[in-house]
Amino acid sequence: MYRDTYVGNLDAEAAGTTVTIAGWAARIRDQGGVAFVDLRDASGLVQVVIAPDEVPELVDVARSLKREYCLKIIGDVRARPPGTENLDLPTGAVEVAARTVEVLSTAQPLPFQLDDSIETDEQVRLQYRYLDLRRDRMSRNLKARSRAVAAIHNNLDAAGFMEVETPTLIKSTPEGARDVLVPSRHRQGHFYALPQSPQLFKQLLMVAGVDRYYQIARCYRDEDFRADRQIEFTQLDLEGSFWGQDEVLATIESVVSDAVAAVRGEGLSLPLSQMTYAEAIDRFGSDKPDLRFGMEIADLSDVFAASEFNAFASVVEGGGVVRAINIGESESSRSHLDGIIERAKELGAKGLVWMVVEQDGTIRSPVAKFLESGEMDAIRQALSGELGDVLLLVADEHRRASHVLGQLRLDHGRPDGHDDLSFLWVTDFPVFEVADDGGLAPAHHPFTAPRSVEELRDSPETAVAKAYDLVVNGVELGSGSVRIHDPAVQQEVFDILGIAPEEAHQRFGWFLEALRYGTPPHAGFAFGIDRLVSVLQNEPNIREVMPFPKTQTGFDPLTSSPSPVTEDQLAELGIELRPDAEESLEAHPAG
Amino acid sequence: MYRDTYVGNLDAEAAGTTVTIAGWAARIRDQGGVAFVDLRDASGLVQVVIAPDEVPELVDVARSLKREYCLKIIGDVRARPPGTENLDLPTGAVEVAARTVEVLSTAQPLPFQLDDSIETDEQVRLQYRYLDLRRDRMSRNLKARSRAVAAIHNNLDAAGFMEVETPTLIKSTPEGARDVLVPSRHRQGHFYALPQSPQLFKQLLMVAGVDRYYQIARCYRDEDFRADRQIEFTQLDLEGSFWGQDEVLATIESVVSDAVAAVRGEGLSLPLSQMTYAEAIDRFGSDKPDLRFGMEIADLSDVFAASEFNAFASVVEGGGVVRAINIGESESSRSHLDGIIERAKELGAKGLVWMVVEQDGTIRSPVAKFLESGEMDAIRQALSGELGDVLLLVADEHRRASHVLGQLRLDHGRPDGHDDLSFLWVTDFPVFEVADDGGLAPAHHPFTAPRSVEELRDSPETAVAKAYDLVVNGVELGSGSVRIHDPAVQQEVFDILGIAPEEAHQRFGWFLEALRYGTPPHAGFAFGIDRLVSVLQNEPNIREVMPFPKTQTGFDPLTSSPSPVTEDQLAELGIELRPDAEESLEAHPAG
Repeated sequence: MYRDTYVGNLDAEAAGTTVTIAGWAARIRDQGGVAFVDLRDASGLVQVVIAPDEVPELVDVARSLKREYCLKIIGDVRARPPGTENLDLPTGAVEVAARTVEVLSTAQPLPFQLDDSIETDEQVRLQYRYLDLRRDRMSRNLKARSRAVAAIHNNLDAAGFMEVETPTLIKSTPEGARDVLVPSRHRQGHFYALPQSPQLFKQLLMVAGVDRYYQIARCYRDEDFRADRQIEFTQLDLEGSFWGQDEVLATIESVVSDAVAAVRGEGLSLPLSQMTYAEAIDRFGSDKPDLRFGMEIADLSDVFAASEFNAFASVVEGGGVVRAINIGESESSRSHLDGIIERAKELGAKGLVWMVVEQDGTIRSPVAKFLESGEMDAIRQALSGELGDVLLLVADEHRRASHVLGQLRLDHGRPDGHDDLSFLWVTDFPVFEVADDGGLAPAHHPFTAPRSVEELRDSPETAVAKAYDLVVNGVELGSGSVRIHDPAVQQEVFDILGIAPEEAHQRFGWFLEALRYGTPPHAGFAFGIDRLVSVLQNEPNIREVMPFPKTQTGFDPLTSSPSPVTEDQLAELGIELRPDAEESLEAHPAG
Repeated sequence: MYRDTYVGNLDAEAAGTTVTIAGWAARIRDQGGVAFVDLRDASGLVQVVIAPDEVPELVDVARSLKREYCLKIIGDVRARPPGTENLDLPTGAVEVAARTVEVLSTAQPLPFQLDDSIETDEQVRLQYRYLDLRRDRMSRNLKARSRAVAAIHNNLDAAGFMEVETPTLIKSTPEGARDVLVPSRHRQGHFYALPQSPQLFKQLLMVAGVDRYYQIARCYRDEDFRADRQIEFTQLDLEGSFWGQDEVLATIESVVSDAVAAVRGEGLSLPLSQMTYAEAIDRFGSDKPDLRFGMEIADLSDVFAASEFNAFASVVEGGGVVRAINIGESESSRSHLDGIIERAKELGAKGLVWMVVEQDGTIRSPVAKFLESGEMDAIRQALSGELGDVLLLVADEHRRASHVLGQLRLDHGRPDGHDDLSFLWVTDFPVFEVADDGGLAPAHHPFTAPRSVEELRDSPETAVAKAYDLVVNGVELGSGSVRIHDPAVQQEVFDILGIAPEEAHQRFGWFLEALRYGTPPHAGFAFGIDRLVSVLQNEPNIREVMPFPKTQTGFDPLTSSPSPVTEDQLAELGIELRPDAEESLEAHPAG
């Protein structure tokens, strides 16, 4: 037997007992031949005293120990001498006086210190991830993730959901450039795809009568470099039949609240707030507004419509808007404010006007001379401008002005980290997103039900979908929708989305066929487990809550994967490398 | 709102209430214009009466309904007229008198009947799996699986295990012909592999100090046609640090017992029986003995050593054995017994001798004339031969004789199905399996700890590994082992297994490096979820407990996957089809 207790259990009450413990030498201090070892196991740390003056057999081992040796120790728990207790440590009232010390395995010198206060290059951390995960921070993150997932299981099992595993080697679709492809050995020239989500299979489960489905599902996305994405990631995927939006939202917020409680000790106050997409854009310039702070966008179009300031008046006359935020008391040097103008231009604004409410109540601004005092008062009032506040104004079409101000709002107001949590439902998303070139692109997958097919047909640019997102602290956690359950509607929506009948048949023919056998109304949701846990753990990216993440280009420094394979392996799959890939392989043989 | 109750809740107590229910028209009977509809939802069935004579507005809908239409019905629950109750149905005491019937969606004529008593071609079932899953049998299977998995989660969460998700895009190894390969787009010419199991990553988690790990893990195996395997499958994967075999066995049998209880209503009597590999081969001729019946192998070598029957005596003299089973009262015609001889030869025996205990106590056998009556008595006694029993004898080397008799034992004694469950641990597996050509092949992955390195070095052919299997009813559910935690031992074991140092470095260098940083002793296990649930549900194969399985060649008749992809997609991955694959593609464009 390697141990009879975890070290974290050793408190004052354990004093006087003899224990067998096992773990790692986190720190070793030598004091005149006596070794003080902080022994770490999964539960915590305890101080072990290896004193050859008391136990002569220990003299060799006391000298030989090095950091991260794995040890088995039999010893006596005793109160620490008065004055040497460590109040920072749950076990700090006691120490273990070793009788025997067995080195279960030795450790080479470490490539980096396992100390949360020391910053180590991420590449090195990933290369030695098994050491990185020994750190308190990473150990806490893995535990938090495990607790969150267990809470999700418990919630949904209790609510009568059925966990169903959908396949991960699925149909690749010719247009699916983002699919991760898997060549088939049995059918050379044919490929599977790894799922971007279980979307169609969960809808098939609804057709099958499963009624309440969920899955903690591994999903795959072969994207170009994007911040904080991974080629494989995990989502809670969920769907219910005879459901509308309300049932989905109630279920998901209960699940999320339980996950939050499992990690943070306290759940959420339910129901969560809801806001339509239109309101979110209008007030916060974002479809994922961070509500932990105000700084709402005010509309000043009326003020400027009749103003002498032609640059703004003409925008309003042309159907545009003048919108603004108050970023509060802030640095107001000319150079700093010029920097904000540059930032606004980067964000797509044609320009930006700043105003500073001076200590005497007047407004300092490059455009002050064009404004009457009544207009200035109206601006201050609309933005609740206090002395010292900096106001930022953008004139443009509504969408762009809101977007730019939404970003500036985050620049100047967003709290660091996620100590506080502010969850929000954003509902009534549009069917189409307006691209920068003014064109329309479907905002969701094509199985999302429109609020009305007539509306979609008659005014596609403003048509609303039965689609909703869950947002926390300005981060999109997940999204869902009511699905189309009528194959005729589905066909019509494909049509309006610009998916030709032959294309629809080729891509989704088998799915359209399934819809023809009495499909129930259904709706669902999916949210990112990695994302949720990273927010709850106040981590800056999802890699910190994944045990073995890859780099942004999908490389694993630990195993040097992906890696070359043999000619024979390729031949079995009916494929060969293209000459350019051969060359790239020769240039970088180690991957 | 689509419903306010599940139909399964409608019992006699519900009579007098008005309900909103939704589901599918499982059966429709017309009786003089009145439609009797068995409405099915996830909870069960209830009879709905659509009576235009009572509710005239229903006249059209009553006529239009077809099987598997999806309906929403508001109606009054009432006791069925005396004499028309259906005692087979939990809701059979009542019926719902419809006030309104809304067709939520229609259904085309079905490709097959959703009736468990009708056998449908599996290809058709898989093509319309969403209909197949509506059948009682399949619905029960999915529910059972979900309950079993939930029980596993609950057991391990309560026992302090951490669920950790290991990556599924992992390092491909040049020798891994069975790896499912995934080409990388970012690193052309390089490939990931999908995991055959999380083996190395879970061992890394032990190095990382995770202490107690589990995962319900999707695994992949690209095998040639083998009965009842799938290219993707699911296992419970588990590992613990500072553990030996006893801790693993106790944990796994508790988990399995909870899963059995979740499906069958009653758990197992623990601890489970254990038997060494050597005993299992000796007594039952199998490393996965089915203990639901006796028919043990008896050794008759002593009887024949001095016998006049030279064919057997010489085998014994040459170091072989004579072994036998009693298959009980059985057909004993000459032609039937000749058939058994043929079967034994197919199984690899040089021959087989049958003996029938006649009603007068004498033995009828082709070799009877060579045997003395004392020898016959000894044979009868060793095999407890009763009147009418048929005895089967094989003379060969111990391994082959045992194997052949083990198979014949199953042929003649094995119960159909899995109504009763007989779990068994088989322990102390050999390090090497003897192949048919007499060569030695490693029986486990190369991280399995030998009982002793010296034994492995000195007598590899008989060396025992710290490896164990869990067997139920003659089916191997899973296997595990104590792992090597000392990199020097690992290196030596590679050596003895015939893995050269360069090869070991190339394949496992990163793993050997990890072992050098204070690796704790650890041990683990993995068992197949699909297999366990198929046994518990008494299903003949794992496809019946998988929602969307593929055929034995990895084809999905539902989506026609795998499927061809475009030139552009291949180019992005740096690969192209070989000419033979191109041809095969042109010959079978639809997959």
